[in-house]
Amino acid sequence: MRDFRRTTHAMTGLANDTFIRALLRQPTPHTPVWLMRQAGRYLPEYLATRKKAGSFLNLAKTPDYATEVTLQPLDRYDLDAAILFSDILTVPDAMGLGLRFVEGEGPVFDRPIRDEADVAKLRVPSRESLQYVYDATTQIRRSLVRGDGLQRVPLIGFSGSPWTLACYMIEGGSSRDFLKIKTMLYRRPDLLHQLLEVTTCAVIDYLTAQIEAGAQAVMVFDTWGGTLAHGAYQKWSLAFMERMVRSLPREHDGFRVPSIIFTKGGGGWISDIAATGVDAIGLDWTMDPAVARAVVGQRCALQGNVDPSILFGTDDAIRAEVAAALAAFDSPRLPGHVFNLGHGISQFTPPAAVTTLIEAVHEMTRADAPVAMT
Amino acid sequence: MRDFRRTTHAMTGLANDTFIRALLRQPTPHTPVWLMRQAGRYLPEYLATRKKAGSFLNLAKTPDYATEVTLQPLDRYDLDAAILFSDILTVPDAMGLGLRFVEGEGPVFDRPIRDEADVAKLRVPSRESLQYVYDATTQIRRSLVRGDGLQRVPLIGFSGSPWTLACYMIEGGSSRDFLKIKTMLYRRPDLLHQLLEVTTCAVIDYLTAQIEAGAQAVMVFDTWGGTLAHGAYQKWSLAFMERMVRSLPREHDGFRVPSIIFTKGGGGWISDIAATGVDAIGLDWTMDPAVARAVVGQRCALQGNVDPSILFGTDDAIRAEVAAALAAFDSPRLPGHVFNLGHGISQFTPPAAVTTLIEAVHEMTRADAPVAMT
Repeated sequence: MRDFRRTTHAMTGLANDTFIRALLRQPTPHTPVWLMRQAGRYLPEYLATRKKAGSFLNLAKTPDYATEVTLQPLDRYDLDAAILFSDILTVPDAMGLGLRFVEGEGPVFDRPIRDEADVAKLRVPSRESLQYVYDATTQIRRSLVRGDGLQRVPLIGFSGSPWTLACYMIEGGSSRDFLKIKTMLYRRPDLLHQLLEVTTCAVIDYLTAQIEAGAQAVMVFDTWGGTLAHGAYQKWSLAFMERMVRSLPREHDGFRVPSIIFTKGGGGWISDIAATGVDAIGLDWTMDPAVARAVVGQRCALQGNVDPSILFGTDDAIRAEVAAALAAFDSPRLPGHVFNLGHGISQFTPPAAVTTLIEAVHEMTRADAPVAMT
Repeated sequence: MRDFRRTTHAMTGLANDTFIRALLRQPTPHTPVWLMRQAGRYLPEYLATRKKAGSFLNLAKTPDYATEVTLQPLDRYDLDAAILFSDILTVPDAMGLGLRFVEGEGPVFDRPIRDEADVAKLRVPSRESLQYVYDATTQIRRSLVRGDGLQRVPLIGFSGSPWTLACYMIEGGSSRDFLKIKTMLYRRPDLLHQLLEVTTCAVIDYLTAQIEAGAQAVMVFDTWGGTLAHGAYQKWSLAFMERMVRSLPREHDGFRVPSIIFTKGGGGWISDIAATGVDAIGLDWTMDPAVARAVVGQRCALQGNVDPSILFGTDDAIRAEVAAALAAFDSPRLPGHVFNLGHGISQFTPPAAVTTLIEAVHEMTRADAPVAMT
């Protein structure tokens, strides 16, 4: 075990490569854990940086701030991965839609896509217009390197899925019923297709640039894929994510760059998701991990899927839920499990509960005689 | 075929019993169709009655108005079932929580359940406190009888599931993350259990009284069951629905009263739902009907599951989606399919689109030489 890990470090430059190995279905000395939205409003230090930045958009668009908040949860918790701090709507913003954040309402586009002329104007944004994301990626990657030259944990890059971005682009913001985009789907499928084509090219370029800038794994957030009907999902969301997965660099600097697809509400479609060739599938908390494993076998790693609300429970309840989740994934005995929530962490989460969760994952999955990870 | 139906009519008093037969997995001369929320704001005649009633609650609580709006969609469309017009929150309202409707926000309880003392006070409401629902049921049932003494279509009664009612009772209204009830689940499971016990007894009595008053099938709306994690769903929602299904009268006046459970987002759990002994399972539009049929076989009928947003498509798109859904259910060749949407119809639906949908279902599933249904 020790020798194996020593080789690993030399090979990857990573002090802790458990996350990458789990995505590639390789054995790991413990089950890696990170949390969606781990850099966020539940942390007082995040709120302090955000205050300094003045606005969420300025925070996301300033590499110094983005670096600061990306590292905050790593300083507080024993996390096994870092994720680029950014917003999923940076690409449509760079396409000229005019992103704003309205307090209590979330993201809003000043110039949503409504008709043929709007769609015709859409172009893949220049790398310059998203340079702030790539600069943040490089700066975070450098900041993860310790005094001994090893990188603490790998850095994840991400993008919204084409369908999910299209939802925001057409609805103009969040929606309950997605009637605008679905009306386009059932009335002008040609327009929607054109929009998704351009957006897919844009996100492929976006993730490729993130990988070149230092992202060591990439995750596609298909937040609204689960609003589509069976059949429509395969055609309007998954097909475009498949094109992404197949178009992204499989390796960079000689290292494999694993990919993750997460469709919230997509538990019924994981066999189709696995068929895209993606390395890992994110699961929400409605999915039975044992069923997921039976469906995908070792074709894919599985990431998830704990209900974020367990973090509002007692410490005993949190530990019981961690134990149940690990048992359901048969983790770490079966390789290919990344412990995570099934959705972003709530802004109301008590930070101490996260300590309990992460320590429980590591304690329960470490080999009998635990050894330090350096 | 004619003889078979003539026997049926004499036996049930129903001019059209396709809905009941489909729920019982018996062959039908066409696939029956009804739409969740078929009496609602998309119909101008509904809006007129609501205006007359002054408020939604007065509409729901006045049997004359409830009867009027229940029959409206039947007069406009060739529907195969009527559903009692009511609200899912009548039971907690009768338990003393103080139901109000806030424009744009939906239902709100003035006195939500917050602590041990609130839970301790909960009682099964008296039949008198919900008499207006039973009166409406009887009046609607009578109004469905035609001049020739036959009932046009069967009448469905309904209730929210215990978990779904508990969500509103504890959150005090709609919620995005259900943190209050989930905090109780992971901190005071004893309290939540007590609340669900009382609520389950209340809804069993509520549906029993609806059946005695004239409801010929009952549907349990588990709108928020899909917010629970796998495992938690079985324990905190399904177990209580199972108790309901097993406690309700199986027959009334010598006729079987079939039951339907609909858990939105519960596609992964239909095998467990089927094991409750329920007659039919509602499916949302993310579910592959072919998979659902393979999982439950002929243990249960299946109801659903078309995306309500197809009603915003062109007539050709609507017909194509109907054809695809019928093919996926292998309907009407395989018995046990009730055509429906996978969610309530949108208030913005053009009424003419509903005509297109219903006519398509009937045209595509009627025997080669169609005969009138009287």
